[in-house]
Amino acid sequence: MITKIFSIFLLFSLVIAADKNYNRPQFHLTPEKGWMNDPNGLWYDQKDKIWHAYYQHNPNSTVFASPISWGHSTSKDLIKWDYHGVAVKADNKDEDIFSGSIVIDKNNTSGFFNDDVDPEQRVVMVYTSNFPGAQTQAIGYSTDGGYTFIKYDGNPVINTHSSSQRDPKMFWHEESEKWIMVVVDAQVYNYQIYSSSDLKKWEQVSTFQKKGYLGGQYECPGLIKVPIENPDDGQPDYKWVLYLSINPGSPIGGSAVEYFIGDFDGETFTPDDGASRFMDFGKDFYALQTFDNTRDEDGVVGLAWASNWQYSSYVPTDGWRSSTSMVRRFTLRNVKLNPSETGLNLIQTPVWETEDTLDDGSLKNWYMINEYDVEDTILNKWSKVETDFNSETNSSGVLEFNLTFAITDFSAGLQDGPHTLAVNILSQEVDGSKDKFQLVFDLLGRSWYLDRGNGNAFQRDTPVFDERLSFYHESQQTGDKGPLYNIYGIVDRNVLELFVEYGQYALTNTFFFDNGRIPTSIEVVSNYEQSFATIQSFVARELALK
Amino acid sequence: MITKIFSIFLLFSLVIAADKNYNRPQFHLTPEKGWMNDPNGLWYDQKDKIWHAYYQHNPNSTVFASPISWGHSTSKDLIKWDYHGVAVKADNKDEDIFSGSIVIDKNNTSGFFNDDVDPEQRVVMVYTSNFPGAQTQAIGYSTDGGYTFIKYDGNPVINTHSSSQRDPKMFWHEESEKWIMVVVDAQVYNYQIYSSSDLKKWEQVSTFQKKGYLGGQYECPGLIKVPIENPDDGQPDYKWVLYLSINPGSPIGGSAVEYFIGDFDGETFTPDDGASRFMDFGKDFYALQTFDNTRDEDGVVGLAWASNWQYSSYVPTDGWRSSTSMVRRFTLRNVKLNPSETGLNLIQTPVWETEDTLDDGSLKNWYMINEYDVEDTILNKWSKVETDFNSETNSSGVLEFNLTFAITDFSAGLQDGPHTLAVNILSQEVDGSKDKFQLVFDLLGRSWYLDRGNGNAFQRDTPVFDERLSFYHESQQTGDKGPLYNIYGIVDRNVLELFVEYGQYALTNTFFFDNGRIPTSIEVVSNYEQSFATIQSFVARELALK
Repeated sequence: MITKIFSIFLLFSLVIAADKNYNRPQFHLTPEKGWMNDPNGLWYDQKDKIWHAYYQHNPNSTVFASPISWGHSTSKDLIKWDYHGVAVKADNKDEDIFSGSIVIDKNNTSGFFNDDVDPEQRVVMVYTSNFPGAQTQAIGYSTDGGYTFIKYDGNPVINTHSSSQRDPKMFWHEESEKWIMVVVDAQVYNYQIYSSSDLKKWEQVSTFQKKGYLGGQYECPGLIKVPIENPDDGQPDYKWVLYLSINPGSPIGGSAVEYFIGDFDGETFTPDDGASRFMDFGKDFYALQTFDNTRDEDGVVGLAWASNWQYSSYVPTDGWRSSTSMVRRFTLRNVKLNPSETGLNLIQTPVWETEDTLDDGSLKNWYMINEYDVEDTILNKWSKVETDFNSETNSSGVLEFNLTFAITDFSAGLQDGPHTLAVNILSQEVDGSKDKFQLVFDLLGRSWYLDRGNGNAFQRDTPVFDERLSFYHESQQTGDKGPLYNIYGIVDRNVLELFVEYGQYALTNTFFFDNGRIPTSIEVVSNYEQSFATIQSFVARELALK
Repeated sequence: MITKIFSIFLLFSLVIAADKNYNRPQFHLTPEKGWMNDPNGLWYDQKDKIWHAYYQHNPNSTVFASPISWGHSTSKDLIKWDYHGVAVKADNKDEDIFSGSIVIDKNNTSGFFNDDVDPEQRVVMVYTSNFPGAQTQAIGYSTDGGYTFIKYDGNPVINTHSSSQRDPKMFWHEESEKWIMVVVDAQVYNYQIYSSSDLKKWEQVSTFQKKGYLGGQYECPGLIKVPIENPDDGQPDYKWVLYLSINPGSPIGGSAVEYFIGDFDGETFTPDDGASRFMDFGKDFYALQTFDNTRDEDGVVGLAWASNWQYSSYVPTDGWRSSTSMVRRFTLRNVKLNPSETGLNLIQTPVWETEDTLDDGSLKNWYMINEYDVEDTILNKWSKVETDFNSETNSSGVLEFNLTFAITDFSAGLQDGPHTLAVNILSQEVDGSKDKFQLVFDLLGRSWYLDRGNGNAFQRDTPVFDERLSFYHESQQTGDKGPLYNIYGIVDRNVLELFVEYGQYALTNTFFFDNGRIPTSIEVVSNYEQSFATIQSFVARELALK
C-alpha cells in the first residue's frame, strides 16, 4: 500500500536550496548566531508551560572562545526553539561561565525567593566559574522565570582548589529529602557526589572514580532515576543511571557519553556490574543533560550537543555553529545482548509529543507535509523502494523514516563479497548528481555501516572528519519470514539521529552536503540479485515547522 | 643530516609490482594458501631455538569455513615465517579444532612423555572441540617438537554443556605451582579461571564476569605477568594483565582486544580499578595470544590476527587471506594519561631482535636496504621531507619510520580550519597517481587522524571497510622547542602497525592499495604556511627478507 498526503501547508514550504542557511537544522536547537557547545540548566516551567534550555555560548564567535556565557532558548513543544541571546554572563573579564544546571526550589530552601515568585519559577542555577587555572562552583537565581539571573554573593559554594572541577548537575532526591549535586574533577577521573539542604552549603558524600572508559577526562556528569519498561520477576521497576561525557579520547574518536546502571542511596552510586556502556554510537552526541522539574508523564528527558570537539570548529557554517540533539526520553529495557544473554539497556526515544502538546495541540509547532508507506515488499537488486516527495522543486529538508525488515535467507552472506541492504538519504539532484548519507546493513556481519561522506568536498577533504562508522545490530524479534530488524531515523538538514531496534541503539551524526543540497528523499535498496530480505514496513514522512 | 645506504643486497630486491601477491606482507606471518584467523598454541622451543605459531586455518578456503584446523608456521627470528600446513585436524566430520594454546610440560605432570622426549619439547595442547551447539575443551600432545599431535583419549577435559565455552589459554603459575587455564563462556561474558596439577583434571577456581566493554561476546582470553618499567615508590615491579577479545560490537566496529591491570593470586584476578582499556586502537588487531615458555630475556611476547571480522572475508586476495601482527613485547609503564593524571598503561614494542638473534646473527633473516635520516627541520607548507629510496624502479614494500617532532606554536590551532602535520605513506607512481595511507596530526585537537583510503577502488567502494579513525596523543615529554610527539611505524605491503609515544598507543590497520601498488616512500608535510612544528628527528628505513 502506498499513500501520499499533500498537506494544505505545502504552499508554505520553501525552496530553501539557495538559502545560505541551507544546512541549519529546523527541528533541533541552534543558536541564532555564534558558537554553542554543552547544554546547561535545562528545566521545565510547569506554570507557563515553557521548556528552557541554556548552553555554552559566545554570540560573537563561531569557534569556542572566551568569554563563554550561557545562551538561552525556549520551546513550547521541544521541537521549535526561540533564541533569547545571552542569559548569564561573567562579571569579570578573566571569567567564563562554564557548564552547570538548574533546579526549581519550590520550597525556597535557599531563601532566595519571596512569595511574589511562583513556586514553579523559583529558579536556582549552579555553574562553574572558570578562571585561568581555577574552577569553582557558584550559584545564582532568577525571579523572572529564567530570563535574567542574580549571582549569589556568597560564591563560590564549592572550592576544592582544583583547576578541573566542573559541570555541576543538581537534582532533588526525594528519598533522602536532600539536594544532590554531581560534579567531576575532570582530569583525575573523579565523579563526585555532594548533598545539601539549602543549595548553598554542600558536603561531599561519595566519589565514583576511574570507571568505564577513561578517555582524556570526564565532563558533564548526571544521575537519573530511570523506569524499567519490562522488569523481570524480582527486578525493581526503576534503576539509577549515572552518565558522564569523555573528551578527548573516546574509542570512536573525540567526544562521547557513557553510562552505568545501578543503585543510589542518597550518597553512593553502586553499579550493577563492571561493564562500560556508551549512550550513542555516533560521532555527534556529547555533554548530555536532562531536564529538571519535568512532569511524571513526560518522564526522564534530556538533550546533548550534536557535535564533536574533533571538528566542531571546522565544519561549514554561516555565522552560527552546531545544534543540540532532539530531546530524548530515557527508559531501561531488558534486551537480548546476543543470542544467549539478556541485560538492561538504556532506551532512547525522541520526544515528538509532550504532555502539553497532547493537552493542547496549538502548542505543537510542526506538521507533516508528505507521507510514503510500503509494506510486504521483497527486496532485491531490481526492486528499489523510494519516496516520492516531489523533492526536486521544494522540500523542507526534514525527513523521518521507520523501516522494519525480515532477513529471509542468511545463506547468501559469504558469497562474492558483501550482500547488503541500504537506506540512502539523498539530496535533490544538482548538476546531475545527488549527495548521499548511506546506511548499509551487511548480511554476513549483521551490522550497519554508516557512510556520511560520498564524495562531497568538505567531508572527503577534511581528514579530521570521520566519514564511516558501524555498529552491531542484534535482532530482538522473529516474524513469519525471519529475524526482524528495525531502524528509525530523523534527518534534519545536516543531522541524522538514528534510533535502532526501538531505541536500543542510538547514533547521532552530523553531515555536510555540498552547498545548497539538503536531504529530500530516501530509498531502500539491495545490491544482491537474489532476495535475502523482505520489507515488512517502510514509512517515511516529510515534516516542517509551522 | 641525510644519509643513504645502498646495501649490497639491493641486487636481490625485486620489482614486485607485477606480482599477483603484491599485497602479501613479508615481515608478518601469512598462510601460504587458504584462510587464517586466531593465532593458537604459540610457544618457544628452547632446545631447537624455534618459535612455533599455530592458527585457525582452512587451506582449501579463502573464507572462514569448516573444517577448521590448526595451521602451523615456525620462525627463527619472529620476522620470517615458514609454513608447514595443517598440524592438527578434526577426526570427526562435524568437528572443528577451534582456538587453544600450548604449554611445555617439562616435568611431565601429564604423564604423556617418556625420557626420550626432551623436557623443552614436551608439548601439551588444549583446544576447543567444536560441534554444532556444543563446545568442550580437549587436550593433545606432541612428541616430535610440535609438528604432529596425539589427542588425549580421555577428552574432553572440560565439558560444561555450553555452546560457547572456548579458547582456553594455559600457563604455569610459579607461585602456586599449578597449571592455570583461562577460558571464556563467550555469550554470557564469563571469563573463567581453572587450575590443574596434571593438565587433565581441571577445577574452576574463579570467574571474572561482565567487565569492560561487553560487545557481542568475549573470546580469546589470556592472563600475563607483566613487568613495570618505571615503578613508583611502593609499587610492585610487575602487575598481572588480563586480556580478552570482543567481537562483534567493538566501539570502533567489529573486533577488538581489551585488557585489565590488576593482581592474580593463583585463583582470582582482582583489577586495580574499574577502567575499560583497549590494547590496540586500529581496526585490525584481534585474538591476541602470548607465547609460552619464552626465556626471561625475551619477556612477555605475543601476536594477534591482523584483521577484523567485519571485512575479513571481503578483502582482496590471491588464494590466501590475512596475516598476524608482528610479535610484540609487553611491558607496563606509568604514563601521563592527561596533563594532570598518571597511571599504568600497557606498552607494546615490536620484536626486531630475540635473545637468539642477538646471540647468533645468522638466525636473523632480514636486513636494511635503505636509510633516510633528517634532524632539526622546521616544517611548513613549503618544507616537505621525503625519503629518497629510488622507489619507482624497485622496492621491498617494507618500510619502517620513527618521527619525533616538537610543537613550537599552538596558537595557530583555531585559525582557518585544521592545521596539520601529516605522515604520508605513498605507493610508487602508476598512471600518474600514487596511492596513500595518510596519518594526520591536528594541532588543535592534538590527535591523529588515520586515512587508509584515498580514492583507491576497494576501500572507497566497500562501505564495510572503515577508512578513517583517530586517537588522542598525550605528549609525555617537553624538549627545548616545545612538547614532543613520537610516532613509530612499520609498513609491510598491506599492513601498517603504529607504536606511538614509545609504545604507549598501538594501532594496527590493513590497507588495500590498487592492484600492483605497494608502499615505497614516506613524506612528512604540513598544510600551514607558518611553521608550528619542528622535526627533531625522522628516520626511515627500507627493509627486506634475506
